[in-house]
Order: sequence, then structure tokens, then C-alpha cells
Amino acid sequence: MERLPGFRDFYPEPLPHADTWSADARQFIFDKWRETSRRYNFREYDGPPLEPLELFTTKSGEEIVGQLYNFTDKGERAVSLRPEMTPTLARMVAAHERNYKKPIKWFALPQLFRYERQQKGRLREHFQFNADIIGESDPAADAELIALLIDTLRTFGLTEQDFVIRLSSRNAWQEFFQGSTPPDSSMREYEFFQIIDKLERTPKEETEKKLSALGFSIADVNQFIESGKPTADLENILQNLAARGLGSFVKIDYRVIRGLAYYTGVVFEAFDAKGEFRAIAGGGRYDNLVKLISGGKVNLPALGFGMGDVVLLEILKARGLLPKFDANVDVFVLIEDESLRAPSLKLIQELRAAGFAVEYPLTPAKPDKQFKRAQELKAAFTAKVESESYVRIRNLKSRDEIVAGFADAANHLR
Amino acid sequence: MERLPGFRDFYPEPLPHADTWSADARQFIFDKWRETSRRYNFREYDGPPLEPLELFTTKSGEEIVGQLYNFTDKGERAVSLRPEMTPTLARMVAAHERNYKKPIKWFALPQLFRYERQQKGRLREHFQFNADIIGESDPAADAELIALLIDTLRTFGLTEQDFVIRLSSRNAWQEFFQGSTPPDSSMREYEFFQIIDKLERTPKEETEKKLSALGFSIADVNQFIESGKPTADLENILQNLAARGLGSFVKIDYRVIRGLAYYTGVVFEAFDAKGEFRAIAGGGRYDNLVKLISGGKVNLPALGFGMGDVVLLEILKARGLLPKFDANVDVFVLIEDESLRAPSLKLIQELRAAGFAVEYPLTPAKPDKQFKRAQELKAAFTAKVESESYVRIRNLKSRDEIVAGFADAANHLR
Repeated sequence: MERLPGFRDFYPEPLPHADTWSADARQFIFDKWRETSRRYNFREYDGPPLEPLELFTTKSGEEIVGQLYNFTDKGERAVSLRPEMTPTLARMVAAHERNYKKPIKWFALPQLFRYERQQKGRLREHFQFNADIIGESDPAADAELIALLIDTLRTFGLTEQDFVIRLSSRNAWQEFFQGSTPPDSSMREYEFFQIIDKLERTPKEETEKKLSALGFSIADVNQFIESGKPTADLENILQNLAARGLGSFVKIDYRVIRGLAYYTGVVFEAFDAKGEFRAIAGGGRYDNLVKLISGGKVNLPALGFGMGDVVLLEILKARGLLPKFDANVDVFVLIEDESLRAPSLKLIQELRAAGFAVEYPLTPAKPDKQFKRAQELKAAFTAKVESESYVRIRNLKSRDEIVAGFADAANHLR
Repeated sequence: MERLPGFRDFYPEPLPHADTWSADARQFIFDKWRETSRRYNFREYDGPPLEPLELFTTKSGEEIVGQLYNFTDKGERAVSLRPEMTPTLARMVAAHERNYKKPIKWFALPQLFRYERQQKGRLREHFQFNADIIGESDPAADAELIALLIDTLRTFGLTEQDFVIRLSSRNAWQEFFQGSTPPDSSMREYEFFQIIDKLERTPKEETEKKLSALGFSIADVNQFIESGKPTADLENILQNLAARGLGSFVKIDYRVIRGLAYYTGVVFEAFDAKGEFRAIAGGGRYDNLVKLISGGKVNLPALGFGMGDVVLLEILKARGLLPKFDANVDVFVLIEDESLRAPSLKLIQELRAAGFAVEYPLTPAKPDKQFKRAQELKAAFTAKVESESYVRIRNLKSRDEIVAGFADAANHLR
């Protein structure tokens, strides 16, 4: 029986097949995401992987449904596996924001789902690090969030030679849009943003045609991009990040605009410096979303970013920044004399109680086979009960051997 | 907008509402589950939360569908959110077992889903610690798995006063069934097991009637239960656990039989000693399942247990074994003089780079308000930049204050 297309099996390393994913690498990434969040005092939250469909269409319009993993449940509810975390966050914050001092700094590591019919070999799920600040409109919050993004990537060993944060502004583009044409429907503005978003991936002629249909010249657009003049907000953020010593990780780049309709201010994306991969992370301000999701009841400015596990993993692999994942056994207990199995089990129990990762042969096995297994598991030590009172301990690296009293064995394993 | 019935929102503590769940407590439980697994050298794996429906009906029959969160996806596939992890594990092991030395010792922390229409206020999802040993038929494997179960509960601070593992045997019941009646269809045996499984929750008269329909007397059944005579396998397991010093956590109790059809040998459940809660965990041998799931291609003996987060959390709460979850801020950086915000940001960055959890006022705030916030966050220290060169550090517990050189500040925070 096969798993569903677009889904992943996560195995312990060493991986059995090119088609499988590493559970160890996933946990390594999750641990780093959590650890950086802790240093920035972001608190963890989570919501259901399944939500009312309406939560997502309210935010993104009915056209999103074509990309969703949605269905009708047995209670005749229109539901969907979550394609992103922000609507759930907005729902949760709106429900209980009074309990929390502002700004709220939260993160989550949700698994997200998309279903597009035309996909071939593309993943239908991934994990995403989501970090958000809610209740603060000052650009100091944008700087704090971008600093978290930068330090998250640095925690993996990535440097300013490896990645760059491209910083842009929906406001600046809005001014450009409104300054160049008579005010028009927001629909046309959305269309305009979509064209800018796809600028780098679209043939020039096509972009030119689409822009002129909206009353813009590609020359004006390019000039605006090249001018790269930061808005007051962006200037503020750059100064803040420079004070932290993070200035070299950021550059203004107006080609970034983010496709999603709900961004309202500063937007940004993290890219590998060589431009070989898709964006590592993206985010921005969405000051109207909490109000929208709460049906007008709660109005809080907000901003956030999302970082997926798939592109990050590709980059860490390419840069040689993934550690080797072993079983990490501390002690392999050899049982060469079956009459000593009972005291061996006692030793195993005591060593585990002392915090060591311990493995041993479940059933009788030849001494050389046991030792080979200890080596395969990269055990740091072997321990062999020699009598009810003594244990022989061997350091597999230094090859030092000592005989310790039974109760004292754990002290010789540090 | 509301979340779906039966699903949970996980918030950072302090919790805003009785209807919400603690993301901190969840992470606390996950960490302990992972930590105990590490000491026992169980490796983590995971599969998709959505699987082909057939994976679950192959194992449990078509009647399981009434309890599943199943639907038809956009590609016309019959799919289901996973109600349990074992079929996914069997699928994954069958696909790549040759890559792994036996016995395979694996664990997972999946979120599982059930949809029963008649549920009112009952959860439709929970998290479960799943640990399994595959490829070893010796009862030594059963003992190793039960030891892991016991130590997992002990890691939370639970003792033999708090819980007991009730150990039973499908084989013993099978012998009883076959010894008392002429051999018959396995369907009648399954019915018989269902009656025994529900013995404690069913009125005596009803049990009597059902048993006699299958040709059994309740007196014989009760006598068998009370005899409590361990099989050779159970004897073996008891001795093994006794050698580890864990004998007092286990007792033979033939009332345990486990409802699920696929168990083949030893079965067990963990209960709180006072009998106030539903079972904390349950498991047993399922030696035929890998063969069944792999369509006969792979034949490996196996056993495992599952421990849900909901009952465990109830017991930990009742026993006062949940720690207080705070923000765990190490340092709150006070910014009382806005002209020193830039060097303050530099200090914040350096302290976070040194591994400290650091919070600070994003925007100008009155000194007393800042200090109050530091206290609310249970910060261990405050740090205040006094010039480009000096930092005043205050230990909020001892109230000791020192002035340190800027570069030296981190050394005064241990």
C-alpha cells in the first residue's frame, strides 16, 4: 500500500531511499526554530490542522478554494486542511486578545496543506515556522521580527554570504500606483501588485502588455524599482537593524511585493545569496486582517513571516550545514554471559535513570556481533557486568578500560 | 469565526479561558516523551496525517469507517485523517525494513483524528505517543517496551502509588476460548473478546446473557480471571521487569484484553492506581499486521503502545505534577533614555547571541512600566545601558546590582 501523492514519510537516519525524508533533520530544524524563538521571547501556540473553509475564504476570497485541501465533513460542514497559519492566528488572537499584554509575540510550527490538481511530484504538505507580532504598529516591531528571521537563519550556520533579506513596501508601491493613475478600484491595484510580484519570472513583453493595460509603462516601473528610495518606515527598520549589527543582511528591493492580497505595509523575503533556490521565507505587515477575521470586533495591527522546511533543508544540504544524525547511543551494555542478564538489566535501568541513552542485545548474541552493533550505533562506551558487584567500562574512542563498582558505573561515563 | 467542534486551540500560558489548552503543557509532555525515548534508544519517525482509507479498513475492517474522519479528495481518492499510527508504521516498515537492523525500535508523536457523529463535547483529535518494537518475537521485547512505558510515566513524576500496568494475554484467553468450546469461526472469538473487553463497564446480567449465547458461563470466565495464572510469556516478562527493579509497577489482570482485533499475544494497559481516569496507555503484540499491510510481502513480529495526551494531562494536573509555565525571560533590557536605544539594541543582540532569552520595550515607555513588565515576565535580570561602555545589571531575585563593561555583560548573567 502506498502513501498519498505529495505526502512525505519521515524515517530515522540513515535514510533507506531517496524518496524518503529524514525525521532527524526535521527535528533538528524544529529545535533550532524553537530555540531562536525562545531567545527572542516568542511564545508557542497552535491551532487545529482542520478549520472551517470560511476562515480561509474570508481572508483570501473564493478563488483560493481551487488550491485548498477542502472537503465536506460528516456533519455537512465545509472544512479545509489549513493552507497557512495566519487566519488561525488571527482567529485565536481575536478570541482572547484581552488576556495578553501587547505586543503579542507568538510562533508556531504548523504542517500546512495545499491541493492543486495540476501538480506533478510536487509536495501537498510542508512544515512552516510562523512568527508574528500583534498589537504594535511602530516599525520597531518590523525590525524585531526581521532580526528574528535573520538570527533564525544564522542559527543554522548560514551567513551574510549565504542569504539576504530583500525589503520592500506595499505603501511605496501604493503611492506609485495612486500617483500614476487616477484612483481606481482596489481590484486594479491587486492586479498591478500581481504583475510586480511575477516581474522576475515573466517575459518582458508580457509584463509590458499587462502594465500598459492598467495604464503604466514598464520604464516608469523599472525606474521606481531602481531608485530604491526607502520610505520613512523602511529607513527606520534599516537603522534599527544596523544598531543590532545586522545591517549587512538586508537590502531594499522593490521587486519584492508578495502576492498575497492582505499585506498592508512593509513586506520582505529571504533569499539565498546565489539565487539558486526559491524564497526561504517571506512576510510583512497585515494590519487589517485581525479586524477582518473577527468581523470587526477586534482591531490590532500585525505582522509576521513564514519559513518552510523544504527550501531551508535544500539550502542546508547544499551548504553542508546539516550535522550527521546518528542513534546517539551513550552506552552499549554487552551481555556475554547469559547468567548475568538479570544484573545487566539492573545496570541498564540505572544508567537510563541517570540520563544515558542505553542499548543492549534483547536476546542472546555472540560477543563479536554485540561489539559490532555497539560500533554501528556509534556508542561512546560499552559496559559489561562482570559480577553482581563489578562493571567493565570501555571508552570506544580512547579505548581506555576501567573496572568500576556497580553503583559507581554511571560516574565513569561522562 | 469559531474553530470546528472537537478541535483544540493551544495558547501560551497563562491560559485565557477554560475552553483553551496550554501550548506550553503540550510541549512539556512532548519533550518528556522524546527524552525517555532517547534513553531507550527509540528513534523518531512520522508519516502523513492523511492516508488512503484502505490502509485503515485493511487493518480494522469496513466497520471502522463510521468512526473515521474520511472523505473523497479532489483526485477522487478515498482518504482519511489517521485515527491511529500503527497502520502507517506497518506500511513504512514494510516498504524499507531491509535498511534497518532488527529489532527496529521507533516512536512517533502523531496527532490522531476520529469522527463519531454522536459525540457531544468530545474531542475529535488528540496527540499520542506511539512506541513500537518490530522484528523480535522474544518476550524480552515486550519487557523492554513495558519498561519504556513505565519510565515514561515516571519521568513525569508519577510513582507506583499513582499508576499500575495491567498485563494480560490474548493467547491465554484464546486457549480458554478454544478449550471451552469446539473450534469455531474467528468471528465468534472476536465477539467473545469484545464481551471480555467491556466486562467492567457492562451490567452483569447483560454479560451473562451474551456469554451464554456463545456457550460460556460467567462463573467459568470469572474463575479464569481470578486464577490470574501467568502464561510462560507473561512469567518471562515479569521476571525481566523485576530484574530492572520495575516489578512493583506491573500486575497480571486478565480483565484487560484490548478491544482491537489485531492483537495476537501479550496485551497491557496503564491505569491510574485510584481508577479515577480512563486508561493512560494501552498496547500489545500484533505479530500479523505487517504481513497483512504489506500484502504478504514482509512478515515481522511487532508490538507497541499508544499514550494519549488528554488523559495524561488530566492526571498530571490532578497530581500537581505540571510545572508553572512562564515566559522564561532571562534578561529584560530597560531603555529609560531613548538616546541610548541604539546601544541597547546592540546589547540585546549580543545577549541573545550568547543564548539568553531577552525582552525589551519595543517603543518608548515609562521606567516604572518597563520594570513592572520585567517582573510580569519573571525576568531573572534587568540590564540597562548607562553609556556606550557600561551596563547596569540587576538580579531581580537577590536584588544585587553591578555595573559591567559592555562586552562583559553576558558573563554577569549566569
